[in-house]
Amino acid sequence: MEKGTPAIGWAARDDSGLLSPYSFSRRVPKDDDVTIKVLFCGICHTDLHIAKNEWGNALYPIVPGHEIVGIVTDVGPGVKSFKAGDTVGVGYFLDSCRSCDTCSKGYENYCPTLVLTSNGVDYDGATTQGGFSDVLVVNQDYVLRVPESLSLAGAAPLLCAGVTVYSPMMQYGLNAPGKHLGVVGLGGLGHMAVKFGKAFGMTVTVISSSPRKREEALERLGADAFLVSRDAEQMKAAAGTMDGIIDTVSAGHPLVPLLELLKPMGQMVVVGAPSEPLALPAYAIIGGGKRVAGNGVGSVSSCQAMLDFAGKHGITADVEVVKMDYVNTAVERLEKNDVRYRFVIDVAGSQLDAAA
Amino acid sequence: MEKGTPAIGWAARDDSGLLSPYSFSRRVPKDDDVTIKVLFCGICHTDLHIAKNEWGNALYPIVPGHEIVGIVTDVGPGVKSFKAGDTVGVGYFLDSCRSCDTCSKGYENYCPTLVLTSNGVDYDGATTQGGFSDVLVVNQDYVLRVPESLSLAGAAPLLCAGVTVYSPMMQYGLNAPGKHLGVVGLGGLGHMAVKFGKAFGMTVTVISSSPRKREEALERLGADAFLVSRDAEQMKAAAGTMDGIIDTVSAGHPLVPLLELLKPMGQMVVVGAPSEPLALPAYAIIGGGKRVAGNGVGSVSSCQAMLDFAGKHGITADVEVVKMDYVNTAVERLEKNDVRYRFVIDVAGSQLDAAA
Repeated sequence: MEKGTPAIGWAARDDSGLLSPYSFSRRVPKDDDVTIKVLFCGICHTDLHIAKNEWGNALYPIVPGHEIVGIVTDVGPGVKSFKAGDTVGVGYFLDSCRSCDTCSKGYENYCPTLVLTSNGVDYDGATTQGGFSDVLVVNQDYVLRVPESLSLAGAAPLLCAGVTVYSPMMQYGLNAPGKHLGVVGLGGLGHMAVKFGKAFGMTVTVISSSPRKREEALERLGADAFLVSRDAEQMKAAAGTMDGIIDTVSAGHPLVPLLELLKPMGQMVVVGAPSEPLALPAYAIIGGGKRVAGNGVGSVSSCQAMLDFAGKHGITADVEVVKMDYVNTAVERLEKNDVRYRFVIDVAGSQLDAAA
Repeated sequence: MEKGTPAIGWAARDDSGLLSPYSFSRRVPKDDDVTIKVLFCGICHTDLHIAKNEWGNALYPIVPGHEIVGIVTDVGPGVKSFKAGDTVGVGYFLDSCRSCDTCSKGYENYCPTLVLTSNGVDYDGATTQGGFSDVLVVNQDYVLRVPESLSLAGAAPLLCAGVTVYSPMMQYGLNAPGKHLGVVGLGGLGHMAVKFGKAFGMTVTVISSSPRKREEALERLGADAFLVSRDAEQMKAAAGTMDGIIDTVSAGHPLVPLLELLKPMGQMVVVGAPSEPLALPAYAIIGGGKRVAGNGVGSVSSCQAMLDFAGKHGITADVEVVKMDYVNTAVERLEKNDVRYRFVIDVAGSQLDAAA
């Protein structure tokens, strides 16, 4: 039997979530596979939840990472759109069934048998291993083109955090000059939503429980206004003014004061995932015909459109670049939201020693 | 000062909600007003909540009623579209500002200063009195044309129950043959949703906590399937099959099992208003990009389109017609959901004695 491509990464072995060096093999590349040397990989909250088995679905050992930017090193004979040397990205998933209703409509991110990039189960039964590793083998249809004009470290979080806010903004028409967007929470997702909103020409208001984020929101990210969510007076003054809200908060929080910020028929999009259910009183959505939608990342085509848009407008995430041997510390700091706004591992610049 | 049109109705005087005869005046008709002799008026749950001041906004005395069908008896010189003898309807509201964002877009039902037909405040400061009375004076732009082919008693509930389910079905594309609609709760709203869904050519499944509604749903209303919401096995077998759900239940109930019935990107519409907040876990909408929207009645144009559609397809509500002096008993029975599916008062056929 032909041997796969050897790979070295860092993996979690148990629900401590602690990462350590891990040697494994990528599959033997197929005709339509792209082989990618990983340059950078972002650290997403999801990586942390999965590595610690907080969602009860861990398939140890787990190599996390799904915000991946790299360079193509080899392509199969059936690959038409990529060649060695291309700068590419891989996001939250790397395959889907291609035949279900949602795949057929171009929303393969909601395919019921979506293959996640890390801790997923591939169609051959193999557990997938993510981008905290030196090499990836991915079907060409799930590889993204990353504009070379962008900082590649800053581009890595676009592959999950970026598309997770960009995709629903496009889907729900929250991308038009003159419209007013609320962004709740200023972290990895929230700061991307502010950047896209401003690039779309929108009025952007950041809503945060933390008054000390005002300066960051207004000065650093260029938001137009800032509301402290616990200040009832401020919130009341802004009632009924927003066309849409991207809610990125992953801790429990009241929805009603946010829904009151929406105009009639306004759209809230939930992209943060608090562990406790949100309380949704029917009156808060019936009176104004308001809407609450969930969103999980975005389709391949939406992700490519986002990357092209980011390239055109020079949009990247604000990142703190770290080496692989700092990853456990980075995860600890991430748990305390001690990062502005995303850790990105300089994978190619890290010493990856083969595990014993 | 010119005297208004004398009117006799039944009104609630305090939070007992008990109705009794009440004499009052309608405004002096303006140039663009239509004067309507009330024939029938449906009894909606909202009437009951308002009459008992359960929402804390009662303006006693209250003449309830906003599912009104009648005959035009007079029109002002500026009225172009109606003439004496026309069969018309009036719904949940009878004026709006006509200049706000939502009015301009044709969604005047979400106008922030909407004038409700009963227990509302008109732009002249007067409290509005509803259709449990013999005569109405309404601006022509808020009067609906009721197809004469329909049973007029059965048509009355279309003006609120009907449009409340029809309007979001149109808005969210839940009106196409081949699509699968779930209807939660089989009352005044639910039975209308089943009828519209079938008329649109959809597959319609009724979901109810009460197994004894199976026969009604399938035999009487022509639904295609019936699920007992507490039967986890039945619910699981139907998971991921529905394009949309109209949730009409006004008692507290779990959302998650209903959201699981939706296909990816499926749409739930909440039209029932439980007093306790609904529990909405983020994971239940993020994974499949699902949506929950509230809906309050519908615009004037949507209501007219609904009436025209109902006329074409012979759709009316299933009603129990009562006289005005039965109204307190009807309200009591409505509170116990003891009606299939709507009480309608035969206003013109009732003896309305002037109050002392």
